Amino acid sequence: MISPNRYPVRRDKLKRLIKKKKLPAVLICDETNVRYLTGFTGDSTWLLIGPGFERFISDGRYTTQLAQECSEIDATIRPVSQTLIEATAKVVAKHEVSAVGFEAAALSFAEASQLKTALEKQDFVPVNGLVEPLREVKDADEIAEIRLAIRAAEKGFAYLKASLKPDMTELEASFAVETGMRRFGALGASFDTIIAVGPNAALPHARPGGMLCSDDPFILVDWGAKMGTGYVSDLTRMIITGSISSKFQRMYDIVKTAQEKAIEAIGPGVEARDVDRIARGSIEQAGVGPKFNHGLGHGFGLQVHESIRVSPQSNHQLKPGMVLTVEPGVYFPGWGGIRIEDDVLVTKDGCEVLSSISKELESSVLSF
Amino acid sequence: MISPNRYPVRRDKLKRLIKKKKLPAVLICDETNVRYLTGFTGDSTWLLIGPGFERFISDGRYTTQLAQECSEIDATIRPVSQTLIEATAKVVAKHEVSAVGFEAAALSFAEASQLKTALEKQDFVPVNGLVEPLREVKDADEIAEIRLAIRAAEKGFAYLKASLKPDMTELEASFAVETGMRRFGALGASFDTIIAVGPNAALPHARPGGMLCSDDPFILVDWGAKMGTGYVSDLTRMIITGSISSKFQRMYDIVKTAQEKAIEAIGPGVEARDVDRIARGSIEQAGVGPKFNHGLGHGFGLQVHESIRVSPQSNHQLKPGMVLTVEPGVYFPGWGGIRIEDDVLVTKDGCEVLSSISKELESSVLSF
Repeated sequence: MISPNRYPVRRDKLKRLIKKKKLPAVLICDETNVRYLTGFTGDSTWLLIGPGFERFISDGRYTTQLAQECSEIDATIRPVSQTLIEATAKVVAKHEVSAVGFEAAALSFAEASQLKTALEKQDFVPVNGLVEPLREVKDADEIAEIRLAIRAAEKGFAYLKASLKPDMTELEASFAVETGMRRFGALGASFDTIIAVGPNAALPHARPGGMLCSDDPFILVDWGAKMGTGYVSDLTRMIITGSISSKFQRMYDIVKTAQEKAIEAIGPGVEARDVDRIARGSIEQAGVGPKFNHGLGHGFGLQVHESIRVSPQSNHQLKPGMVLTVEPGVYFPGWGGIRIEDDVLVTKDGCEVLSSISKELESSVLSF
Repeated sequence: MISPNRYPVRRDKLKRLIKKKKLPAVLICDETNVRYLTGFTGDSTWLLIGPGFERFISDGRYTTQLAQECSEIDATIRPVSQTLIEATAKVVAKHEVSAVGFEAAALSFAEASQLKTALEKQDFVPVNGLVEPLREVKDADEIAEIRLAIRAAEKGFAYLKASLKPDMTELEASFAVETGMRRFGALGASFDTIIAVGPNAALPHARPGGMLCSDDPFILVDWGAKMGTGYVSDLTRMIITGSISSKFQRMYDIVKTAQEKAIEAIGPGVEARDVDRIARGSIEQAGVGPKFNHGLGHGFGLQVHESIRVSPQSNHQLKPGMVLTVEPGVYFPGWGGIRIEDDVLVTKDGCEVLSSISKELESSVLSF
């Protein structure tokens, strides 16, 4: 499915950006950015790239893998006796560039300081958000891969619903989701699956534990698949296993309405913070505004959280090809929480909801 | 099993270190260090700590979880409209300290720069390796938890050997290991399980793919368990499923001998680089030195790689309570690789090998 020039095209775009910034070279240290630009799936490997050259700096563990995954870029393989920073300084010295940009969000302060010291003749210039904006807009291949990641996640959810038993713990249920996803093609979960029964659902980032699936009449499931291509999905649904209260019904409706309004507002040219505002306003209007205590959503692709953010502070404008989660929720300590999350693609005319599991309250009911 | 004052004791040690450095406060940003010091298992949460005070800076997703996991420390919960950096700057201003240290390896260059700008009145001082050295030496509770992580991993390996079939792919086999670990108490794998058949084993960090377990007579398995306590294990064994060559037998013996010699050398007061040198020397003497292209091992605990390193550049001295991997290997592109890895505890008198799976060549043979 992957177009053969996927990676060179991406690097060409980056080179144009580097030229625009009047930098002779940039050091790419972020593992996911390296993968995005080259197809190399290992770690501990940096990419030095300039308008006229590109070179990996890696170590012996990756000699073979680099040749297999990205043979068009030469690699400097450092010996075991040399650190990655020392090896990089040597490579830069050889290229005789006057300055090197670096990803300020990827290098730690300590690494940046060490490298700055090691580069005697070059300016070492922090650069923010060079590759991330390229990753925000997905191409047709990437969207196809994201669709597969969503399908695998949906299979995992169906498998969970088929396997769920009253005496299953949250931890066992999380394993059922992952089993289903892996049986249907996923490499694994894209993040630690959240299965939160009743009160545990009050924690937006709950960890599955020993609560039984029948200990309370509802379960929050937040999960996603990671595929061999690297692309991921991220979804949330509620499962109702018992007799729910009128409070639950009312809250479910509030969250669902807010999510639907937000999705309706998504389209090219729209400010991400306005989408957040619409969902937040809808929940506020229903009288439970403070119970929605996180951002509305986020971009995803090779990572489960990547640019852009959909929150009150967001300053991103939506563009066709962006893929986002839309996940409002309300949380009541001691009682529980409700969240509904879909994966949405911004299109030329508006948007397409890529995930397809019903969120009607009736469809969420499961009889053990 | 956890001593009730586990976390206060750790923070007291840190406070003494902070006092020694003549800093009024330090900002702990590394997620694992926050967990180590407080027991809080979430993310996006920093700890401001000084000789006379301690405070979390977090967000609404974690209000309940912080109260559950670490009620003895007060938390500033930032609103959705404020970034973690903005909230931290406000908390620091309130405490009226003259300077704040920060973990230079945990904050990115970009975050450190933003925070430096936001702190108008305080010096912002990079600090290296403040909490990590505390984590190097494990207490009795931690060692007990690591033993459980090793047991769960060993159960996973037994489950794999029981389930292995000729037509199983590497990916399916990796899932079998994880299934076994989770059935026997693990939260999951401590890292992506490596199952590498024949030539794939030439990649020290191979990813399991579509090769069948019977496509070549040997399989490298590198895996570990992560427990609910956070503690992990990390092991490697070879499985022989067919008729192996004399080269394989010779190489296996070289790696096994090097590993045994290294383990024999481990004890308190020994330089970690000398342990690496002994294994490396043994493999060099056998004529395949350049085929051992990585460090000999590393510390582990709450993370699968943590201080200390056992490599030629290491400047750590072994102390009782340190827990390390010992994992020499040799790799031949196109042919395959052999690695043997055990988990070893440094004791008062020498060391104890915590893992117990036989590494005799005969025990590695599996008939489908």
